[in-house]
Amino acid sequence: MKKNTYSAEAKELLDKMTLQEKIGQLNQKLYGFGIYERNGEEISFSQEFEDEVEKYGGLGTLYGLYRADPWSQKNYENGLYGENAVKAYNKMQEYVLEHSRLRIPALLSTECPHGHQALDSYLLPVNLNMGATFNTELIHSAYSVCGKQLREMGVDLALISLLDVVRDPRWGRSEECFSEDPYLCSKMAEQIVKAVQDEGVSVVAKHFAAQGECTGGINASAARIGERELREIHLPAMKACADAGVDGVMAAYNEIDGVFCHANRHLLTDILRDEMGFEGVVMADGCAIDQLNVVTGDCVHSAAAALRAGVDIGLWDEAYGRLEEALENGYITEEDIDRAVLRVLELKIKRGIFKHPLLDENQKLEDYSYEKYPQALDIARESVVLLENRNQILPLSKEQRKIAVIGPNADAVYNQLGDYSPQVKREKCSTVLDGVRSYFGDNVVYARGCGVFEGTQEEQTEAVKLAEQSDITILVLGGSSSRFGEVSFDANGAAISEHGVSMDCGEGVDTSELSLPIEQRELAEKIFATGSKVITVIIGGRAYALDTIAEKSDAVLYAFYPGMQGGKAIAEILFGDVNPSGRLPVSLPRCSGQLPVYYNYKNSYRSMHYYNIPDGAAYTFGYGKSYTEFVYEDVSFGNTEVALDELHKNGIQAEMTIKNVGEYDGYAVPLVYIAGEQGSVVRRAKELKGFKKVWLKKGESKRVSILLPAEAFAVWNFEMEFKVEPGRVKLILEEMGQTVGSETINLF
Amino acid sequence: MKKNTYSAEAKELLDKMTLQEKIGQLNQKLYGFGIYERNGEEISFSQEFEDEVEKYGGLGTLYGLYRADPWSQKNYENGLYGENAVKAYNKMQEYVLEHSRLRIPALLSTECPHGHQALDSYLLPVNLNMGATFNTELIHSAYSVCGKQLREMGVDLALISLLDVVRDPRWGRSEECFSEDPYLCSKMAEQIVKAVQDEGVSVVAKHFAAQGECTGGINASAARIGERELREIHLPAMKACADAGVDGVMAAYNEIDGVFCHANRHLLTDILRDEMGFEGVVMADGCAIDQLNVVTGDCVHSAAAALRAGVDIGLWDEAYGRLEEALENGYITEEDIDRAVLRVLELKIKRGIFKHPLLDENQKLEDYSYEKYPQALDIARESVVLLENRNQILPLSKEQRKIAVIGPNADAVYNQLGDYSPQVKREKCSTVLDGVRSYFGDNVVYARGCGVFEGTQEEQTEAVKLAEQSDITILVLGGSSSRFGEVSFDANGAAISEHGVSMDCGEGVDTSELSLPIEQRELAEKIFATGSKVITVIIGGRAYALDTIAEKSDAVLYAFYPGMQGGKAIAEILFGDVNPSGRLPVSLPRCSGQLPVYYNYKNSYRSMHYYNIPDGAAYTFGYGKSYTEFVYEDVSFGNTEVALDELHKNGIQAEMTIKNVGEYDGYAVPLVYIAGEQGSVVRRAKELKGFKKVWLKKGESKRVSILLPAEAFAVWNFEMEFKVEPGRVKLILEEMGQTVGSETINLF
Repeated sequence: MKKNTYSAEAKELLDKMTLQEKIGQLNQKLYGFGIYERNGEEISFSQEFEDEVEKYGGLGTLYGLYRADPWSQKNYENGLYGENAVKAYNKMQEYVLEHSRLRIPALLSTECPHGHQALDSYLLPVNLNMGATFNTELIHSAYSVCGKQLREMGVDLALISLLDVVRDPRWGRSEECFSEDPYLCSKMAEQIVKAVQDEGVSVVAKHFAAQGECTGGINASAARIGERELREIHLPAMKACADAGVDGVMAAYNEIDGVFCHANRHLLTDILRDEMGFEGVVMADGCAIDQLNVVTGDCVHSAAAALRAGVDIGLWDEAYGRLEEALENGYITEEDIDRAVLRVLELKIKRGIFKHPLLDENQKLEDYSYEKYPQALDIARESVVLLENRNQILPLSKEQRKIAVIGPNADAVYNQLGDYSPQVKREKCSTVLDGVRSYFGDNVVYARGCGVFEGTQEEQTEAVKLAEQSDITILVLGGSSSRFGEVSFDANGAAISEHGVSMDCGEGVDTSELSLPIEQRELAEKIFATGSKVITVIIGGRAYALDTIAEKSDAVLYAFYPGMQGGKAIAEILFGDVNPSGRLPVSLPRCSGQLPVYYNYKNSYRSMHYYNIPDGAAYTFGYGKSYTEFVYEDVSFGNTEVALDELHKNGIQAEMTIKNVGEYDGYAVPLVYIAGEQGSVVRRAKELKGFKKVWLKKGESKRVSILLPAEAFAVWNFEMEFKVEPGRVKLILEEMGQTVGSETINLF
Repeated sequence: MKKNTYSAEAKELLDKMTLQEKIGQLNQKLYGFGIYERNGEEISFSQEFEDEVEKYGGLGTLYGLYRADPWSQKNYENGLYGENAVKAYNKMQEYVLEHSRLRIPALLSTECPHGHQALDSYLLPVNLNMGATFNTELIHSAYSVCGKQLREMGVDLALISLLDVVRDPRWGRSEECFSEDPYLCSKMAEQIVKAVQDEGVSVVAKHFAAQGECTGGINASAARIGERELREIHLPAMKACADAGVDGVMAAYNEIDGVFCHANRHLLTDILRDEMGFEGVVMADGCAIDQLNVVTGDCVHSAAAALRAGVDIGLWDEAYGRLEEALENGYITEEDIDRAVLRVLELKIKRGIFKHPLLDENQKLEDYSYEKYPQALDIARESVVLLENRNQILPLSKEQRKIAVIGPNADAVYNQLGDYSPQVKREKCSTVLDGVRSYFGDNVVYARGCGVFEGTQEEQTEAVKLAEQSDITILVLGGSSSRFGEVSFDANGAAISEHGVSMDCGEGVDTSELSLPIEQRELAEKIFATGSKVITVIIGGRAYALDTIAEKSDAVLYAFYPGMQGGKAIAEILFGDVNPSGRLPVSLPRCSGQLPVYYNYKNSYRSMHYYNIPDGAAYTFGYGKSYTEFVYEDVSFGNTEVALDELHKNGIQAEMTIKNVGEYDGYAVPLVYIAGEQGSVVRRAKELKGFKKVWLKKGESKRVSILLPAEAFAVWNFEMEFKVEPGRVKLILEEMGQTVGSETINLF
């Protein structure tokens, strides 16, 4: 258990501050994108901004100065990018400093769930794609690029979705989760914190906690779970972030068993700080403190509840503007306020912005192109999951022949980006149509066929006709989290209107139906009936139930939201220049009624069995095919009898020899699971505890070792202590969803 | 907090017992139906029975001597009923007494989830029907009849489903729950305990706890909920039973947040005994102690875990036969054993079986006919819910015209009984076809059309033809929990084979699909297309998603499993001799992906909103139409400012004048809900806290008052204490799903 200690510098500063100045440090009321207008190179600020700075004699944190999307109504015409961004930042910061008696600079926070939500940003595929790569080094490398870019633009706090574990695919924010598995989530989160913070930008890990446990898959709804389920599934990613030294945490909208996270002292203080040793700032989610009113009755009480629980910085809420009233009414003490202010000041000191509050306007801005920084494209390449490949139809040969590209997501840039995306330049993007044309040129025929969930008879007929005339049809189905509605952009960046594109996913867009929309299913049935070979590609933000579409396709690729260069990556896989290595980070259900479908259910009953469908997911976590074939030999987990002190000293090594015996170079992805068989509490069917991504050339063989440290065997026991218990544990090694080795060991 | 105290008689007896005799009292290993063979009037016992009595020098509890169903393979040919049952009981008990050194009689336990699962029993509709009546007096009266019959047959322990609250309609045991609502469940459970125990039979309330919270609706799967959700939803029925003095409780198969109920001392001892004051015996569920092996590793440890947690009596498990090993290994103490034995002995003393162990073989056995005891029929009448009645097509006039009765559940006796039913005599039953024919005789035409989920083209065609030729089609769809498979019984009680009837519901039959099976939906579509007026009747054990079937029918009745006389009750409603008064005890979902669908979700977000369907259930809890119309006037909830001590003294009275302004006599069913608006924890959208069933003749008007006691306003607060908190609470009065009065009051 650690205790926060504050620097003399912070404490001295605090002593000089008025109550109003202190409260100002805890507020983050403004929409940053709304405080300015840009006319050419000229930046002017709104009255609201100046009033806010005036009111508090400074500014604590400014949210989203660079945000540029339909909601912010900022774009290449009127938004900030390149040099004008740097200038705007400096002008904003100078204004704050000039109006702050103690010259306390503002922190700048910004959305970065998959790259910075700003113009010209280095955008990445979404979290589900990152999970699907099972490649933590690649993710680290990609986020280093993001961090560098954020640093250039003066961002202090990157708000990154690192903590949500998707447990219900109906949830529209599924895409913001790495996985259904807590271990995979933790490993990804840890690397991102390290990558971004090593570049000098603080990370605010969101959301804490259990948002992925929403009732019915409905956003921000109650997490009705008990504390053991919370600790087993939803807290490990936070622990990993805390261990990686994360500077910030955003509380989650939801309640857990009756207590809102924003008012949960046990969660935000006892667990987060005392148990996990977190020493940074806790930020509220947008307007979340005001939403406590359904319990507290009004904003003043809500502010008090949040501050006492451990929320240091508000976000857009009315409540934190009324902390003074809360103090006057005795709901909080000045110590409560000082504690939060000290945390904010400490972070500002740590970030060095007192010393260097301004950006160098003469800095040469980097060009974050995908050519120079291929990591985003590599994530796309490594995250596409090959679900079916009947008669080894893939990879397609590059011989000329008739290829049709069909479907709502075949040529819709924003449909492959995910939620929280900025406006992008069309010429920097590659759709599946672009990708396939890069191999076959204008011989490739294209028809949309239908939208995500609308369409005309005419366009369906046209698509079916093209498929009939083709040897191969690439059918690109799925969903969309695009908020860009009917607007997309031409090669010159100008807006053009196309067929309506609607969202079926994204924040606040939750669904009761996991099958693809009926328009797409009808289109697919008609295409299958043509007799053309059909390669189906799914681009979407959640785990869909593919049912007959997967059964009738000759091959199926699941691409999640592969990002701006997604089409290129998919085409490279289709034509064999890239061997698919993605593994499912989430289980795909057979139907909407088969929930929850995650692999790591509790082992208190034989199986998740319904009388009317086969057991298990349609495609389970960890599954995914390759063009090549791997053989695992000489698998060993060491001794079958292991003393606990020995375990604590050395852990357990899973060792294996992997041979690439197929015809392609490719990645093997060995996963090591445990299945506890004895202990004080009910264990899960399986729990992932280790994995590696191993490149093997055709014919190559490697000896690989995966360490399971003692903590891999620890459980939240009957007394809710995290301990290794003696007893039998089964170790299981899997590749592509198949068991390739196992052993039961006894811990004593 | 109460402490169990034991009588001197029990303690003296204990002192005389050997360890083996003690352990014998804790075992309930035998299937009672398997210990005997009956040839005519001759009863003989199995070697297994004699060995068991020999082994333990007696017998603690015998399960299911009278059980007669396909599983037990007992029926009217070889089973026990009437005088032979009494004789068999006495012979069994005499054998036990003769082989018990201390002449300790055995307890007899038996299944009674909706009447005794025995031949010639007074069978009731299932729990969902009881909930739908909202008539606690009727349920009390009906169970008094059951109690009387059980007493006649020497039953000591009636195992009754009283504690399960259905939260997921995929669960096959939905039918065993009264409702999705904890208050309605509690009121029903309380009355049943009183009714049965007042007749001199002890009740074992099952299952404790949270079995209705099964993950994915899968039987016995993990309840992943937190303690507040547990206390708010799943414990109130147990509290009501404990307050009513229930003698026994059966632990539930499931785990709660990682701890099996059978090994959960917090649940079975701290909460059940210390908090709730329960003083009876805790029984295991069948083989459930052995199922602890997945945690403990073996049966000996499992026995110890269960005994220490507070399980007094096993059921069919190996574990409790190995308590001696557990003692030898030091996993338990002899005090642990003594505590459980004392509870068993105390109950045997309380039940008077030491003094009167045998039944009077000369007693005149009662005829429990539905004519003499109409309560079961009344439950059927009052539980059928009228969901739709377009253009007031119902009630049908009794004028002669062409009526077709169609559908898999139109004439299938066992499909209307529910799980845990004994073999029944066909002539004592009434199907919908029987009921309609009782009005119109053989002019009524009938075709099955299809089975629950199979059927031939021929029978579909025949059914459609009959519908085409009819003015009115009564379409009886739904499901089945019948374990009688292809066997049903003729008017003389002989078995006849008919079309295969399969289960879609019942224990262990969980589903991922809440729409009716495709065969039934196809049949319905064809029937709708005929142009015949269609009255759809649903007979089934769970909340189905009716979708287009409800939309296209002229009227819809939802009958759950209305029991042996269900057809008569439904026909009486169809023809207006009974005015429907059932209200939904469970919300009906729009589709399988809209789960959970219960009305009392947490109010931490605006609504259970999916982008692709309308908000809310298709038909929500409390909904149900009548042939008449009620007007509510002069609704009052008293003062709007209420001091807490005043509340604790007098509660709050909801008062109203109800007028029957329609054309039929009928029942009004006013429901009073609260919606807490302030407090330390998140409240629910609405919570039922009071209801009445009020008979009003056509034109009649009554002043009605419903008391909400202080405890109606108590919450499990932040510190997990059950207390009334000051703040605003909205009171809502509803009838047939419509708000007919509301008021916000302030508790201070």
